[in-house]
Amino acid sequence: MFYFIIDILGTIAFAISGVLVAMEKKLDLFGVFIIAFVAAVGGGTLRDMLIGNTPVVWMRESVYILVILATVVLSIIFVKQLKYLRTTLFLFDTIGLGLFTMVGVEKGLSSELSPIMCIALGTITASFGGVIRDILCNEIPVIFRREVYATACILGGVSYFLFRELPFDSVYGYIAAIVVVISTRLLAVKFKIALPGIYGRKS
Amino acid sequence: MFYFIIDILGTIAFAISGVLVAMEKKLDLFGVFIIAFVAAVGGGTLRDMLIGNTPVVWMRESVYILVILATVVLSIIFVKQLKYLRTTLFLFDTIGLGLFTMVGVEKGLSSELSPIMCIALGTITASFGGVIRDILCNEIPVIFRREVYATACILGGVSYFLFRELPFDSVYGYIAAIVVVISTRLLAVKFKIALPGIYGRKS
Amino acid sequence: MFYFIIDILGTIAFAISGVLVAMEKKLDLFGVFIIAFVAAVGGGTLRDMLIGNTPVVWMRESVYILVILATVVLSIIFVKQLKYLRTTLFLFDTIGLGLFTMVGVEKGLSSELSPIMCIALGTITASFGGVIRDILCNEIPVIFRREVYATACILGGVSYFLFRELPFDSVYGYIAAIVVVISTRLLAVKFKIALPGIYGRKS
Repeated sequence: MFYFIIDILGTIAFAISGVLVAMEKKLDLFGVFIIAFVAAVGGGTLRDMLIGNTPVVWMRESVYILVILATVVLSIIFVKQLKYLRTTLFLFDTIGLGLFTMVGVEKGLSSELSPIMCIALGTITASFGGVIRDILCNEIPVIFRREVYATACILGGVSYFLFRELPFDSVYGYIAAIVVVISTRLLAVKFKIALPGIYGRKS
Repeated sequence: MFYFIIDILGTIAFAISGVLVAMEKKLDLFGVFIIAFVAAVGGGTLRDMLIGNTPVVWMRESVYILVILATVVLSIIFVKQLKYLRTTLFLFDTIGLGLFTMVGVEKGLSSELSPIMCIALGTITASFGGVIRDILCNEIPVIFRREVYATACILGGVSYFLFRELPFDSVYGYIAAIVVVISTRLLAVKFKIALPGIYGRKS
Repeated sequence: MFYFIIDILGTIAFAISGVLVAMEKKLDLFGVFIIAFVAAVGGGTLRDMLIGNTPVVWMRESVYILVILATVVLSIIFVKQLKYLRTTLFLFDTIGLGLFTMVGVEKGLSSELSPIMCIALGTITASFGGVIRDILCNEIPVIFRREVYATACILGGVSYFLFRELPFDSVYGYIAAIVVVISTRLLAVKFKIALPGIYGRKS
């Protein structure tokens, strides 16, 4: 139940990120819905297609499409108020990032993939919705330019496999990994930490 | 046989839409072919990948690739004449839209998906070829800005499931749904109907 | 073993092409890695998703992700030297093109697809990594404008099926097809051969 609530909150936060990007591009109602939908479920969809877990997840559970539809309608109506909720949204988004990472890792484990691939799947699940959202809006994906987002997923995934070596119940490792993702991102944003630059002084 | 002819006519119409967009971008012969191909079969391909119906449809039937190849060659030769055929092309395109919607709905039914998912699959089948076409040409997809296209698919899909409740043979519901898609689009274009705006007066 | 070395060399060459494109766009470290990764394995990934051969190839063998990671790190460190290696890189890239084409053709054969589809799969395997790379970087894919790249794959694939009719061991046909791809591209670049124009004099 707890898991389900967080999953839905993450979906809502990602959908809202889609609405905001789509409205900036002045898309129409249908376009806004599609971008919100893709932002919310695109990462999990790509993951499911890569491992052959079809029909993909949102096709098996109507709840996702309905939640996103409601989110889009409410977001458009209350778009002005959304701006005052930036911190709350950022928090949901970050929680979603942590949870979606671990959903992806778990799918990898149940497909018997190696740890590296599980971490890759976790990162794809959590961050590629945003990549597809940006491509559809004709932008270079923001996470390719401001990377602590995906880096947090990778660190969380690595932590999970390190925790697994310890003599604890796997649930704790799961929760610890989510905490790593969330705190990495919060700290990176708070202290403006970025990956080391690769273009020398002038870029 | 009737079904097959309409399917091929829809494929041709969608392929021509691809040729026209690609030539506007001054792509070369190979690029024009790929854009035409993607416009014609991209929606069905995405649908098949989402539900795991692989190899995807155009890989199992060579007829699609050959029809598109012929369409591209003829379109390039007769590109000037194509401009006088705008109404005919628009009609084919609209018929294709109706038929491809129902192909997608049927695939969803045979994968035992819920009505909402069947409608989503129908819309994807009919309209996402155009989305991928526009992305490959580095444009924001036109259907995200001029939405009666996809809305017609959704209305058609909803109609199908309403008709199914009536005590008629399912073939009539099938045909009725195609008629709904086609007439929705024709009326929307004729009377310049669009979805309600969401940006207030000045956008 | 020979096959494996060429496969890895091709992966490296394609990954370097990704690094160069991504650095031109000033992406950050994560973005550069993803673009390199997609350039190297994107074609094979799309192929595997189209035929339902999942989990896709790079998920089953960690070697790809590790080789690409090492390539990205070394490429960023030695980016200046890379410019003096243009000819070597072009050669690797062309060898990779030939080999990846035949990998795709073989996958098609083992999925019992028709020759046309095998050639299509070969072309997708060899050239669509570059397409996805360019889309992620918000560019119209270069192979849609400078087409001898994909045309070489198609010619190679056709050659393979012609050679198969001859009374030789299939290994020779395989090698001959790779030679066709490589020499087509080398000759096209050397003699500046392009597909016939389709836009009349002034384009």
